[in-house]
Amino acid sequence: MSLPLLGWFRHYDKPTLAQDLGAALIVTLMLIPQSLAYAMLAGLPPEAGLYASILPLVAYGLFGSSRTLSVGPVAVLSLMTAATLGQLQLEGVHYLDGALALALMSGGWLLLFGLLRLGFVAHFISHPVMSGFISASALLITLSQLGPLLGVRLEGHQLQALGSLVRQWDAITLATVVISVASLTLLLWSRYRLKGMLLRLGVDEGLAASLVRLTPALLVMVAMLLSWGLDLGALGVALVGEVPSGLPAWSWPQWSALPWQALIVPSLLLSLVGFVESVSVGQTLAAKRRQRISANQELIGLGVSNIAAGLSGGMPVTGGFARSVVNFDAGAQTPAAGIYTAVGIALAGLWLAPWLGVLPKAVLAATIVVAVLGLLDWRQFLHTWHYSRTDFVALGLTFLVTLAVNVELGLLAGIAASLLLHLYHSYKPHWAEVGLIAGTEHFRNRLRHQVELDQSLLCLRVDESLYFANAGQLEDIVATLVSLRPEVRHLVLQCSAVNRIDASALDSLQMINDRLQLAGIGFHLAEVKGPVMDRLRQSSFLDRLNGRVFLTMYQAWNGLTTQPEYVI
Amino acid sequence: MSLPLLGWFRHYDKPTLAQDLGAALIVTLMLIPQSLAYAMLAGLPPEAGLYASILPLVAYGLFGSSRTLSVGPVAVLSLMTAATLGQLQLEGVHYLDGALALALMSGGWLLLFGLLRLGFVAHFISHPVMSGFISASALLITLSQLGPLLGVRLEGHQLQALGSLVRQWDAITLATVVISVASLTLLLWSRYRLKGMLLRLGVDEGLAASLVRLTPALLVMVAMLLSWGLDLGALGVALVGEVPSGLPAWSWPQWSALPWQALIVPSLLLSLVGFVESVSVGQTLAAKRRQRISANQELIGLGVSNIAAGLSGGMPVTGGFARSVVNFDAGAQTPAAGIYTAVGIALAGLWLAPWLGVLPKAVLAATIVVAVLGLLDWRQFLHTWHYSRTDFVALGLTFLVTLAVNVELGLLAGIAASLLLHLYHSYKPHWAEVGLIAGTEHFRNRLRHQVELDQSLLCLRVDESLYFANAGQLEDIVATLVSLRPEVRHLVLQCSAVNRIDASALDSLQMINDRLQLAGIGFHLAEVKGPVMDRLRQSSFLDRLNGRVFLTMYQAWNGLTTQPEYVI
Repeated sequence: MSLPLLGWFRHYDKPTLAQDLGAALIVTLMLIPQSLAYAMLAGLPPEAGLYASILPLVAYGLFGSSRTLSVGPVAVLSLMTAATLGQLQLEGVHYLDGALALALMSGGWLLLFGLLRLGFVAHFISHPVMSGFISASALLITLSQLGPLLGVRLEGHQLQALGSLVRQWDAITLATVVISVASLTLLLWSRYRLKGMLLRLGVDEGLAASLVRLTPALLVMVAMLLSWGLDLGALGVALVGEVPSGLPAWSWPQWSALPWQALIVPSLLLSLVGFVESVSVGQTLAAKRRQRISANQELIGLGVSNIAAGLSGGMPVTGGFARSVVNFDAGAQTPAAGIYTAVGIALAGLWLAPWLGVLPKAVLAATIVVAVLGLLDWRQFLHTWHYSRTDFVALGLTFLVTLAVNVELGLLAGIAASLLLHLYHSYKPHWAEVGLIAGTEHFRNRLRHQVELDQSLLCLRVDESLYFANAGQLEDIVATLVSLRPEVRHLVLQCSAVNRIDASALDSLQMINDRLQLAGIGFHLAEVKGPVMDRLRQSSFLDRLNGRVFLTMYQAWNGLTTQPEYVI
Repeated sequence: MSLPLLGWFRHYDKPTLAQDLGAALIVTLMLIPQSLAYAMLAGLPPEAGLYASILPLVAYGLFGSSRTLSVGPVAVLSLMTAATLGQLQLEGVHYLDGALALALMSGGWLLLFGLLRLGFVAHFISHPVMSGFISASALLITLSQLGPLLGVRLEGHQLQALGSLVRQWDAITLATVVISVASLTLLLWSRYRLKGMLLRLGVDEGLAASLVRLTPALLVMVAMLLSWGLDLGALGVALVGEVPSGLPAWSWPQWSALPWQALIVPSLLLSLVGFVESVSVGQTLAAKRRQRISANQELIGLGVSNIAAGLSGGMPVTGGFARSVVNFDAGAQTPAAGIYTAVGIALAGLWLAPWLGVLPKAVLAATIVVAVLGLLDWRQFLHTWHYSRTDFVALGLTFLVTLAVNVELGLLAGIAASLLLHLYHSYKPHWAEVGLIAGTEHFRNRLRHQVELDQSLLCLRVDESLYFANAGQLEDIVATLVSLRPEVRHLVLQCSAVNRIDASALDSLQMINDRLQLAGIGFHLAEVKGPVMDRLRQSSFLDRLNGRVFLTMYQAWNGLTTQPEYVI
């Protein structure tokens, strides 16, 4: 574990301080409504969101490796938290305890992976799986916000909530709907129109973008004023309710009352999703400034950050996409910006808390819905469909299971499907009979290229590592080819695509060798890679080989052909 | 579904008939003690073994594709049957019903796989896993026979049985021990010495081998006579007990009283193990006579065979190794030999049944123990250790879990471990910086070969298909190499070992391309295979590629090098 802090702190000067402070101010204003909204999405009291935006940011500032990542509550993790705790049917104080436990446990996983340098685990969520998961999550989040937007209380998980909405059609209050429509209109207008308008008015590009990002904060302030002035609560509009004033206190879940074993897998998935999301944002931003982030250091940073969240009454956190981009665009130079943001949120918690209670929940729901709209990426569905049906299957499965069953199973199904599909590909290897491309020393598939062939020489390229699942296929391919070409005297196996030969495949090669020997056909290998050759030397295969191992296909060709007899 | 019968029956003549009849006689004599013994091993009444050696052989004769495979009860399937039914704590008639259900269900799996042409499923049990499983099974079988050999009744599964043996030390009867020791001595002497002796006496090689194989039958006959003459039963020696005389009748398990859901996975594993064992014997024997067997037809043959076993009161069956070799050596030419064997066993069931009851169980136990000794293959452990530690892990895990927990979990753990280890290898790809081997157009690893390199050109070969689990690694490798070599102007990725690029890896390649472009470095591909190129053309990657796709590395070298500047 190293302290990246030591890297940037020595060169910390006034201009950097000014830039970091500026960015922190904007991010703070953005984070206040977000932290309240995501706490609501997770089914937690509003202060759980605020507390998750204080200590965790300091922890990440000290241990994280990205200079511009903005850590805090994010939509997808909030949904996962709500889904997990909802399934366990926890209530009241146990529900909050469950959220703390999730933060602590997922922090534990992240820290463990980081210390063991297992950053690669994140790669097991493929891009299509992540894409299907995020899109389905965005739909589920939107769905869950229909309750606060319409002023009713939805029952049931996932798509069932829609049914409960229909049943409560009478309970929808006009005042809430007006607030929701107004908020959504303002936010959407700001998202799609405001920036263009400001630019036409001659506002600077960066400032315009920041103003757009601050619309939610502005909306929240106006809504608080209106709610207080018009006493919206008396009109039946659901309000956020009392937010305790003050700084977070030390917290520790009551483990004995928690089904913590049931949190092991969910917390693992939570940490993986949080890490993948965070690292991809972090890498993109770092690349823009030619900086690098370390996956293992990120794991440690996010791990400590989540543990800090769990210890200070907060919910699970990770680097948020939109917030980090704002932080970056607003000029944040070092992780100190995150620490200043934490101070900002702490001050907000101290001063604003008494006022936040009057905020209508519908306003927060509107900010959530507009924020997750950007997560729905249908174009990715199309691209994936065009590029690879296999990848699309993984994406589609993840999307459907997440939507129809639950987020945990959706993600697991996607990971399992993508691994199985990968194995499926390698079990049925692509192979080609290759011939010499005239004028070169290069051998290619006779079906795709104009190549020279030799009647007595069969050159076979098999496009997969040879292992237990596909070893039998190679036996079949060789047997079939040889039976179709009785004039063949030598078979050369081009091993340029063979990265590994396991013990089962070695047995198969031995079998092929023995059968070819009985049939009076020489069996040769060419272009065997170093590591594979090292391995073969450990066995008796090379001693029993009824042929030679050639460095290149061309040398095999020169050594074994009589003369090229026909050209296709 | 085809009838292989139609292939050989047209040419069936007298010499073939004579050869088949001769082989059938020898196999019948071998199969009588085996079927009794394996029924005992499975915890079933003796007739379950006999019945499994009648109709199933006829069924295989009609539907199977191997000409010399001898189907019937085998040691490992009997052990698996006993383990499965023992765990479910079935008793009496339900135990027999359980065995019938296992035969029917595993027959159903085999038939299903055969009709769906899924013969490949067998490949998912790798050779090391099968080897570890068979060796552990042989040990467990030997252990389970200590009861009958010592005349006590063992309690508990797996290694626990040893404890029960120690507790019953007093109950061991001398007469039983004498019979066991005499039987074991005779069988071992026959196995290791008899053939040499007979050969020295001038007996023909084939006859000598057959006589050795018939020792168990001879032993059984002598033991029956002695047991009857000396009234061994009265001395406290456990006897086989009444064997009903007659032919098998139609049978059907009482499904409603069976926990058949709990048999789904065990019957699947049973069918896989039976199939793998059978196919490997069948292929070896077929290859000796330049014949071929069809994996899918074998599945159908074994499937129908097991269904026939279940419908006629028999236990699960498959092709046995030793028996098939005897059948082959004794000159069996067609599957008709199997049908004649079935007739032989049916006659034995009719005529011998009243006499079989006096046979001491200890004699059968001795034949089992000596038969499975050959399954213990320690040399395979050593070979695998030398060749590949990865394969050894799969082998060792299967061996240990099978021995210490149970056969089902042992096999599943082995399959899971070998798949995960395969994935683990591909996630961390081997890569090499390659250079031109002087005098050729061939590129090889600069660390292993004397190659020409160019300062401004970096040639990188990555030895794995690019997919989600390893795509991130490629980004890291390229970033590291480029940062170490600031003078590089072009990077060529040699794709000869890249058999697939999935959507996640495509994103990574795009990322690499963008980063290299920012750094002013050209990104080129060479030796991209046809199927991979087809796929890339479906995406926008090639349009955005900051470089070219070369047919060969040599063309890339000629097109991009200024001149070779240093040689290592």
